[in-house]
Amino acid sequence: MRIVIVGSGSIGMLMAFYLSKKGHNITLLTNRDEQAFRLKDKGLHIIHHDQQIEVVTVHAQTLLTYTNEESIDVAIVAVKSYQVEQVLTTLQELNVKSILFTQNGMGHTDLFPKVEKEELSVAVIEHGALRINDYTVHHTGVGQLRWSYVRKKDNDVQVMFGNREDSLFPIQYEQNWLKMLERKLIVNACINPLTALLRVKNGELVENQHHKRMLRAVFNDVMEVLKFEHHEELWVHLCEICQRTALNRSSMLSDIEHNRQTEIDSILGYLMKKADQEQYQSNLLTFLYHSVKSQEEF
Amino acid sequence: MRIVIVGSGSIGMLMAFYLSKKGHNITLLTNRDEQAFRLKDKGLHIIHHDQQIEVVTVHAQTLLTYTNEESIDVAIVAVKSYQVEQVLTTLQELNVKSILFTQNGMGHTDLFPKVEKEELSVAVIEHGALRINDYTVHHTGVGQLRWSYVRKKDNDVQVMFGNREDSLFPIQYEQNWLKMLERKLIVNACINPLTALLRVKNGELVENQHHKRMLRAVFNDVMEVLKFEHHEELWVHLCEICQRTALNRSSMLSDIEHNRQTEIDSILGYLMKKADQEQYQSNLLTFLYHSVKSQEEF
Repeated sequence: MRIVIVGSGSIGMLMAFYLSKKGHNITLLTNRDEQAFRLKDKGLHIIHHDQQIEVVTVHAQTLLTYTNEESIDVAIVAVKSYQVEQVLTTLQELNVKSILFTQNGMGHTDLFPKVEKEELSVAVIEHGALRINDYTVHHTGVGQLRWSYVRKKDNDVQVMFGNREDSLFPIQYEQNWLKMLERKLIVNACINPLTALLRVKNGELVENQHHKRMLRAVFNDVMEVLKFEHHEELWVHLCEICQRTALNRSSMLSDIEHNRQTEIDSILGYLMKKADQEQYQSNLLTFLYHSVKSQEEF
Repeated sequence: MRIVIVGSGSIGMLMAFYLSKKGHNITLLTNRDEQAFRLKDKGLHIIHHDQQIEVVTVHAQTLLTYTNEESIDVAIVAVKSYQVEQVLTTLQELNVKSILFTQNGMGHTDLFPKVEKEELSVAVIEHGALRINDYTVHHTGVGQLRWSYVRKKDNDVQVMFGNREDSLFPIQYEQNWLKMLERKLIVNACINPLTALLRVKNGELVENQHHKRMLRAVFNDVMEVLKFEHHEELWVHLCEICQRTALNRSSMLSDIEHNRQTEIDSILGYLMKKADQEQYQSNLLTFLYHSVKSQEEF
């Protein structure tokens, strides 16, 4: 299949590698000319968990110069949540059948009604991936890619992911896209702002008993807002993720350490809006939101 | 009057100086032999706001070796809140007419029923004072000393404080001791844990707009627990204190920086117990409590 991936950070490169290995025709759309040149010149490199390096050939071009005559089967949007709106404007004009979003948080879901494509889906990526340079991604932890249809037409996304099991890149279909995103939102809302505030790795949140109580307080407040059932099952899930990614720095902590904009608006901003609609005053989420905002300098 | 001051940190030394200037017979009770020796040897030094130094003569002794035959008019308890229980045991055996407590928070109020003295009062000290060494205190900011009777008998405390106005050490009598302590508690609960978590001076909490929103979130949660009226008047009061003490490090921040135990149990611990009694789940106060506990290493 012909696939374009918009955004060539760690997630964009990771998906480009595994989809290329499945035999798809991949084009990575970059922000900078230089990155497109390097990806074409050097090939896309992946460093596996066991430090083995593998290289695949990909097409690459900047998003702004890209045009297509032949139809694209799937466009994967792998930019940060706050860049989605801008990318969509460009994407609407391209000959694309199906769009898949991979963002954290829920901010981008507000844009779904504006997407003029008949097939639309979302994915959450529970992998550890670290961008090393313009053409190399380090796959630090194997997790799941979960995905779900928001609107279904020709099964393009299903065909793209295929049926074969891949132990390094397992793929899981989910029935309810909203519940799937909200479940990921809970994880992001609990882990990301707290690691950014305390400047600790994910594992610290469950290894230190006081930090674990802080994590639980945030979790309780998120549950109040989302009115989720099965609290304790979710709490166990959250703690397991902290343990499994113990040595990782969360994306939000990493963004703050590198003076990049964070995805706080798409994560806690969404929850605060939801709390507001239900006239619930969430002092802790407001507190956490501003603790991240006060650290953002980009 | 014969006055003993138990505890010779910044507040104990500050009160000893100004009460000595009023002509009272002051004995400072210390924890260490060495401090008692130095206070007697060098005299009690105060560095005023304008850097002028003044010295007064005081008696000094360790609490454990102190006994008295003549009656003490007032014993001022100026130790940290978590030391009060232990000090009280010693104090009960002495010939003391009236006791005045000066602690932050509300933890010590639970002990009031056990105090076997007929006159009992409390004070809140809104001064900036910094202990420089065993016999020197720096009076960094002039504020108010507010006090109130919990149980009244012979007016000993009233006589001790006197009627004369003192521009460097103004004294204000308050009718309602509980409201007075709770008002101070609100200030301590909002400023202390937040400055300790963020590691900032008091002024930062109102100068940075995001920190101010965090302060407001804490304030809202404290108001929920205490069910105080006149919120906005108190909020203005809180912001004014941050401004007036802008360059100060809060006692809690200072305790953490010097690896000392903090007064968190007497401040947020009290509020959490109160919230619990009223079946209000205060996620933010729980969060803040554990953020301080996780930093305590003493």
